[in-house]
Amino acid sequence: MEAAKNDPPPLPTKHSILPKYKHTLAIHSKARPSCLSHDRETTPSFIGFRNLMVLVLIAGNLRLVVENYMKYGVLIGFSPGSFRPGDVRLGLLCYLMVPGHLFIAYLVELAAAAQARQAQAMQKKTDESKPVKLRVQWRLIAFAHALNATLCLSVTSAAVYWDIDHPLIGTLCELHAVIVWLKLLSYAFTNRDLRDSYLENHPVPEIYQSCPYPENITVNNLTYFWWAPTLVYQPVYPRSEKFRMSFFLKRFGEMIGLSVAIWFLTQQYAVPTLRNSLTAIDRLNLAHILERLMKLSTISTVVWLCGFFAVFQSGLNALAEVMRFGDREFYSDWWNSASLGGYWRMWNRPVYQFMKRHIYAPLRGRGWRHGPASTMVFLFSAVLHEMLVGLPTKNIIGVAFAGMMAQLPLIAVTLPLEKMHGTSASTVGNMIFWTSFCLVGQPFAALCYFFAYSLRN
Amino acid sequence: MEAAKNDPPPLPTKHSILPKYKHTLAIHSKARPSCLSHDRETTPSFIGFRNLMVLVLIAGNLRLVVENYMKYGVLIGFSPGSFRPGDVRLGLLCYLMVPGHLFIAYLVELAAAAQARQAQAMQKKTDESKPVKLRVQWRLIAFAHALNATLCLSVTSAAVYWDIDHPLIGTLCELHAVIVWLKLLSYAFTNRDLRDSYLENHPVPEIYQSCPYPENITVNNLTYFWWAPTLVYQPVYPRSEKFRMSFFLKRFGEMIGLSVAIWFLTQQYAVPTLRNSLTAIDRLNLAHILERLMKLSTISTVVWLCGFFAVFQSGLNALAEVMRFGDREFYSDWWNSASLGGYWRMWNRPVYQFMKRHIYAPLRGRGWRHGPASTMVFLFSAVLHEMLVGLPTKNIIGVAFAGMMAQLPLIAVTLPLEKMHGTSASTVGNMIFWTSFCLVGQPFAALCYFFAYSLRN
Repeated sequence: MEAAKNDPPPLPTKHSILPKYKHTLAIHSKARPSCLSHDRETTPSFIGFRNLMVLVLIAGNLRLVVENYMKYGVLIGFSPGSFRPGDVRLGLLCYLMVPGHLFIAYLVELAAAAQARQAQAMQKKTDESKPVKLRVQWRLIAFAHALNATLCLSVTSAAVYWDIDHPLIGTLCELHAVIVWLKLLSYAFTNRDLRDSYLENHPVPEIYQSCPYPENITVNNLTYFWWAPTLVYQPVYPRSEKFRMSFFLKRFGEMIGLSVAIWFLTQQYAVPTLRNSLTAIDRLNLAHILERLMKLSTISTVVWLCGFFAVFQSGLNALAEVMRFGDREFYSDWWNSASLGGYWRMWNRPVYQFMKRHIYAPLRGRGWRHGPASTMVFLFSAVLHEMLVGLPTKNIIGVAFAGMMAQLPLIAVTLPLEKMHGTSASTVGNMIFWTSFCLVGQPFAALCYFFAYSLRN
Repeated sequence: MEAAKNDPPPLPTKHSILPKYKHTLAIHSKARPSCLSHDRETTPSFIGFRNLMVLVLIAGNLRLVVENYMKYGVLIGFSPGSFRPGDVRLGLLCYLMVPGHLFIAYLVELAAAAQARQAQAMQKKTDESKPVKLRVQWRLIAFAHALNATLCLSVTSAAVYWDIDHPLIGTLCELHAVIVWLKLLSYAFTNRDLRDSYLENHPVPEIYQSCPYPENITVNNLTYFWWAPTLVYQPVYPRSEKFRMSFFLKRFGEMIGLSVAIWFLTQQYAVPTLRNSLTAIDRLNLAHILERLMKLSTISTVVWLCGFFAVFQSGLNALAEVMRFGDREFYSDWWNSASLGGYWRMWNRPVYQFMKRHIYAPLRGRGWRHGPASTMVFLFSAVLHEMLVGLPTKNIIGVAFAGMMAQLPLIAVTLPLEKMHGTSASTVGNMIFWTSFCLVGQPFAALCYFFAYSLRN
């Protein structure tokens, strides 16, 4: 308790029988409302409560860490035998199959390019439009691409479902197969339309002019696309000036650190919570299931955020640095999104860009309205999500599919909130997003698949 | 996933062998860093994470509510027999003693005022300075006040310590006694100096001029001070224009609601946590004590905030409305304080104002430096805190005293942070305040007194 700077107490004197300081200072000299009263014209800052919130979150979860330690001790242990050798071998085989499919796609495009060159030479001579023969050949090319891509995805999927036991290896294989499958589709679609433009002398985007069709049909060009952090094929990409080793090492270090953190968090906190929930689900004890869901929601949100950062910030930036890939917009600030629609547009830009370029926009181009075109996109995405989760865990129970399809009504509900542009509307929308996605959706899905997986094992 | 508004896909045509939409759109057209990269010039907003934090806090604590319910059911039950009739009778007696002490103080001042009037009349005639006789009489007056005030506090304290069993009744009695004691001191000091000014023709603050000394020595004036929401005596206070019934009812309703909430939270959440901690303290199991402390910290912070609002916003504003007391600055925005010093200046303005006017400023007036004067203030406050907690629980274990004295080093440590005026410095200071005060200090003190209280019972 220190005196305000503006009224220093008077110095003592010896002349009075009492020191000069008087206890008569008028402390209450004017009427004024309390700081939190509505009578006040200004609202005080509440920044201190934000700090308190952070601290209570830390204290509350630190307590759970101590409780977990007292209950379970350290659950982490590294046993190299936890992966079956057969799984590792088959996983590697699936991985090595991929260049084969890419090479086939390259050969198909090479043949198509040769035909296109021939056709253009003919056109110049005879000045006639594309012959019927070419149209038939193009259908053959499309069929060859479709067969190749489908084989790429289905062989891996079958192997993952029937032969790979470990869910982690299975998920990695399936994820890789899906990514390459999408890349093959993008490669085929883009080159078809580049060929079309080439024959019809349509203009192509300016950035492609340094490598006009069919010069882009080379093994090098396709290999770059294979490793580039994008699902959308372009003959030419914006490139960064040079490879920065320190940037790469930092991103790579982050990725390793976060992966270890995720592994630790999952083993030490998520697995016991999931295990303890099995009895609750078995007995359909609703209060207990709810309690488990809420306990899981914090850890699943933390793991999710770590995973997002590890993949989209650290991983893709590290890869992009190696590839000198210039466009690093792998995500934008989805955490502020005021609607589910905004979230899906922002969090995973590579997939969003693929969907927009190769599914949504073509459908719109064929005259579809926004609603059905969006529904198609989410249907496609829902099937892929179910494959990614259901195949490695051998539980095609449709929860991931349903979760993706449930986005459509949620997007419709939060769309008005996004359009209102007010702070409180966007706060409400943002909270709906976090609650539906991180606090309910993901832990619920995790519980479902864990329960189904445990029933099988 | 919706197309950006600025590139509507072209409409389909029948003239080409393919629809006009081309899959060749350049998605990656320029190099740009990721949203969270340091390469970016602007930092994105993180407001969404604040929302997430709120939701995780809610979910985490809702889970604890469910867990608590599954473990204990509903612990609340109202038994009117929980207060001993003897306690209630004695508590009421202590309460009713107070007007007696106030009346004695009034009589003492009445005598002093009569003398002062006489002396002034003499002075006017003889024009001499205050005689020695007056000085002796003033010492008598001071002695009478001291005796009266000391009796007021000590009789109640003794009754609370030896005869009142229930800690709640004891705390209320002791709190009331301390408040009236402080008011008696302020009344005596202020009137002494008003008298001094009256005799020496010193000017007094402007606001007092509507009721100059000795006109303020009336039963009405003292009764108003008794009920006014302040510890600092002034002959005249700023008044609000009129009593607003709706304002009063709202504040009163808030106070009742919050009191019920505090009672519920304490019974349902704090008491089981405290009970469970007894074994941990008994065995000196450090990890377990820490876990209990952290579990307690959330509930104690919530109870503390509810209590603060109930007393300082709702209670004192309701009382002030009834008394038409104008100066409602019972607190300012202490939750943002960047230092412990700031907190103690802001959270409890009535006590701060008393300390400043009647202890700190007079000591400074006598030539004390800031450090020793502050130390005196905290020493005084520490003794009162120990009395308020130690006497009703019959455990004068010195933890409240030590807690108050520990503020001095904490204030010294956080003072530089407050003076830096930077955002991060004040955030650090604010976090030190919350941690030391709400997350560690209070739950620790609660644990200590609960443990000591349980040992005795």
